[in-house]
Amino acid sequence: MPTFRLLLEYDGSAFEGWQVQPDGRRTVQGALADAFRQATGQQVRVVGAGRTDAGVHAEGQVASASVETALAPERLRRALDAALPPDVAVLECRLAPEGFDARRDARAKVYRYSIWNGPCRSPLRAARSCWVRAPLDLAAMRQASADCVGRHDFAALRSAGSDVRSTTRTLTRLDVEGEPRGEVFLHVEGDGFLRHMVRALAGTLIEVGLGRRAPDSMPALLAARERGRAGPTAPPQGLCLVRVLYAFP
Amino acid sequence: MPTFRLLLEYDGSAFEGWQVQPDGRRTVQGALADAFRQATGQQVRVVGAGRTDAGVHAEGQVASASVETALAPERLRRALDAALPPDVAVLECRLAPEGFDARRDARAKVYRYSIWNGPCRSPLRAARSCWVRAPLDLAAMRQASADCVGRHDFAALRSAGSDVRSTTRTLTRLDVEGEPRGEVFLHVEGDGFLRHMVRALAGTLIEVGLGRRAPDSMPALLAARERGRAGPTAPPQGLCLVRVLYAFP
Repeated sequence: MPTFRLLLEYDGSAFEGWQVQPDGRRTVQGALADAFRQATGQQVRVVGAGRTDAGVHAEGQVASASVETALAPERLRRALDAALPPDVAVLECRLAPEGFDARRDARAKVYRYSIWNGPCRSPLRAARSCWVRAPLDLAAMRQASADCVGRHDFAALRSAGSDVRSTTRTLTRLDVEGEPRGEVFLHVEGDGFLRHMVRALAGTLIEVGLGRRAPDSMPALLAARERGRAGPTAPPQGLCLVRVLYAFP
Repeated sequence: MPTFRLLLEYDGSAFEGWQVQPDGRRTVQGALADAFRQATGQQVRVVGAGRTDAGVHAEGQVASASVETALAPERLRRALDAALPPDVAVLECRLAPEGFDARRDARAKVYRYSIWNGPCRSPLRAARSCWVRAPLDLAAMRQASADCVGRHDFAALRSAGSDVRSTTRTLTRLDVEGEPRGEVFLHVEGDGFLRHMVRALAGTLIEVGLGRRAPDSMPALLAARERGRAGPTAPPQGLCLVRVLYAFP
């Protein structure tokens, strides 16, 4: 049975996240399962690289699915795409190595957290960013970010409800791009992320940018391993899963 | 009675355009009238510089309103903003010269029409652009655009239902920015626009970009003054009113 690798884009606003919910709420995984049923007549388990939360967007989510079908990958892509609702699209579909699992095989993920740092709320940005009214000190945010890059225990930045063996992860990039009074982007890349970790990181860095938390406070925060000492979980609509990287092309 | 000049941003997706409709549908002008009623207790007529259609967005719509109020402009701005729904915001509010009328006094308007020129539909761009699947020839579009700049009779590019005395307008800018296979923007600036003119211009230029219409065909099209010879009215969600210019600051 061939395994396909799908590249997905979605607007997370109207989804209850990636993962199928027991009570049948609208999810991206559920929408894809419906599309597979329509396109191939089969019940397919779709595995996503990142289990994005409700309201979180994706420019480059990757999913894997094994299904018996005579359709060539590009034909399957079109059939799935035609069966999907307007807020999710299949950008690519190709044959993957046997046994490919989008989640287990992911080597790294890239996220972007978008902040609108302006004096007035912005209706055109509201669905894709978090509004911060007071000017952010980006230099302070950059200093704090630098202390997070590398291999650390990120227990201070995860939400309850994650049942992982280890809370140690490696952040390979955490860049703050933009200007105070404008769009500010946090570019985050790492080998894996704990539940709500990017949003907790964003919420904590925003506090640094507002001067409510010292720019050199991250090492002690991480060492304490207490979620209560970090900043709030920033709202989901600012987060976007940009890319997932694998060992093979 | 003081007259105020408001700078507005809105996401037009859920509005039936700017102008109050007889049947009470949701409009930006109506939302502002409601906000004035809540903020000042008065019934206010709000005049918009551009009467944007249903689904059209604005980054810089300007409106005028005369109202008896003790509130200073910035206090009025906050009161209006707090009373408005999430998809419209007041970015600025200031005192205008007596008799200021946002529509009549506008000297020029700047619009942007956004095209997503990619092989796959893009859910994250869908609410703000028009999807064109086949690669656009931007050089051809630029050639056609150049023939539209200047003072012309634009009767060929207006929709029925406009009751204007003259169909002659001056386009001061019509630039095509971007790359085939990516975001393409039409930057349009002029002293005034006929009904659906920017969208008809966009629809016609897209046909040029697709090779369905010659890049040197615009002079004859304009000379013919027949709407039926131009391209279709491009969809509203690609259009955004960017700025309105006045003789005074």
